[in-house]
Amino acid sequence: MQDSFIERNKEGGIGFSFDVKAKLHAEQTPYQSIEIYETTKFGRLMVIDGCIMLTDRDNFLYHEMMSHPVLFTHDAPKDVLIIGGGDCGTMKEVLKHDSVTRVEQVDIDERVTRLSEEYFPDLCASNDDPRASLHFVDGIKWIKDATPESYDIIIIDSTDPVGPAEGLFTAPFYRDCYRALRKGGIIVQQSESPLLHMYILEAMHRDLKASDFSSVATVFFPQTVYPSGWWSATMGGKGRNVRSYRESDARGKSFATRYYNADIHRGALAMPEFFRERLAGQD
Amino acid sequence: MQDSFIERNKEGGIGFSFDVKAKLHAEQTPYQSIEIYETTKFGRLMVIDGCIMLTDRDNFLYHEMMSHPVLFTHDAPKDVLIIGGGDCGTMKEVLKHDSVTRVEQVDIDERVTRLSEEYFPDLCASNDDPRASLHFVDGIKWIKDATPESYDIIIIDSTDPVGPAEGLFTAPFYRDCYRALRKGGIIVQQSESPLLHMYILEAMHRDLKASDFSSVATVFFPQTVYPSGWWSATMGGKGRNVRSYRESDARGKSFATRYYNADIHRGALAMPEFFRERLAGQD
Repeated sequence: MQDSFIERNKEGGIGFSFDVKAKLHAEQTPYQSIEIYETTKFGRLMVIDGCIMLTDRDNFLYHEMMSHPVLFTHDAPKDVLIIGGGDCGTMKEVLKHDSVTRVEQVDIDERVTRLSEEYFPDLCASNDDPRASLHFVDGIKWIKDATPESYDIIIIDSTDPVGPAEGLFTAPFYRDCYRALRKGGIIVQQSESPLLHMYILEAMHRDLKASDFSSVATVFFPQTVYPSGWWSATMGGKGRNVRSYRESDARGKSFATRYYNADIHRGALAMPEFFRERLAGQD
Repeated sequence: MQDSFIERNKEGGIGFSFDVKAKLHAEQTPYQSIEIYETTKFGRLMVIDGCIMLTDRDNFLYHEMMSHPVLFTHDAPKDVLIIGGGDCGTMKEVLKHDSVTRVEQVDIDERVTRLSEEYFPDLCASNDDPRASLHFVDGIKWIKDATPESYDIIIIDSTDPVGPAEGLFTAPFYRDCYRALRKGGIIVQQSESPLLHMYILEAMHRDLKASDFSSVATVFFPQTVYPSGWWSATMGGKGRNVRSYRESDARGKSFATRYYNADIHRGALAMPEFFRERLAGQD
């Protein structure tokens, strides 16, 4: 009998499993439990508090879609803050943009990053970039203390809105982000599954608008190891329409991607009918 | 302990499970095994030969994307053939198009349809439409015997390319479809997961082109209960560019959908970078 790791999603009444060759690591940090597995067909797998975080095989979908859409939406992103993102995969993508001069990554749990360096070295390949700095402190406090109008982009690359990440899905946090962003700045946050978590997406749109983000838009993308295999990220613009983007720059991008391109960006902004209808009342 | 149905995908080294309240039905037909479950959160579930076919909750994604993109790509679809599709969900969507005067559905296994009528009545709501006829015979033979240039659209809504459906994924079958299509006609076939089955997609593009379909394009969409949660359908045009579509008609469509709309159609045609690169050598 093949060993397997199983994630049970009680809310969705579904489960997802990987055939695994070995459990490579397990530890309880002050914040959460972290496990690393070697799967049979998806390379290595990181699990936090029983939830699948990423695999070698498909993390490119998530990391590219958490970074390139927002970076090609901003007119000229220089200063980028990542809250969460301890596996460093999103930061690696952000650093592909030549306009970026500074990336600060703030993850509360240093162990996520240290284990990623050990087990997912490819994701950490840009950690020594002189533009990058890693901080292992509370992201909510970081943003509260941030100099007003000091960032162009804030990326919230967190776990689900339970446990350590709960406070990252609230209007007070969004208002602090708004204050920390320059005019024309953009926040983007992973916003769960359109099929399973429409109530989270609705609340996020409502709370971002209530926090003075004048334009809010969701990008949809496959994320094959998260519940339902369908995921989303939601952008809010500070005086900036986040439905338009630098299409010709995206088309002529100077770096390689595996999923993202200018057409995928436009396509990801398309709103499913049920989504459009559910949000229609908010405007 | 919650009862569950588990689909193990050995090729992908993954598994997917539903929490279930009850097994409502199980039978072995001359062609395959069919099971029906009542799940806790996805409504009813149909399983064929151990593979998840559809659930109440998310089948709209698949059925809408197997029908509306191809119908809004054709200039004026009148005569439509569906091979497979025994659950009748695709036919129901096809019949929403007023231009359609005839839909023939050819599924080898009558039991799929009879069980769908019993357990998924919503999908069978249009089975009595006077434009529709159901035939329970071999689709490969049907298409071989078809009058040349008698269909505008052929939809291959089959199971995976193993077992009864294997012959539907071959160049000889595509050539018979080509012959049965009018000029300007279009074939569309479900083409598996872009993440897991790129070799099937490559072969399908190659074989459709070799069968004289002058234009071939894939649409990508979430299909949350199929392996990886990410699925595709591939169109081939008989002297018809299948990358363009009747966008204003789609925008002004007279019927309700839950996923599909004109923007989703354009977005679904966007090619992920890895896909574009893998197919670049074929042209």
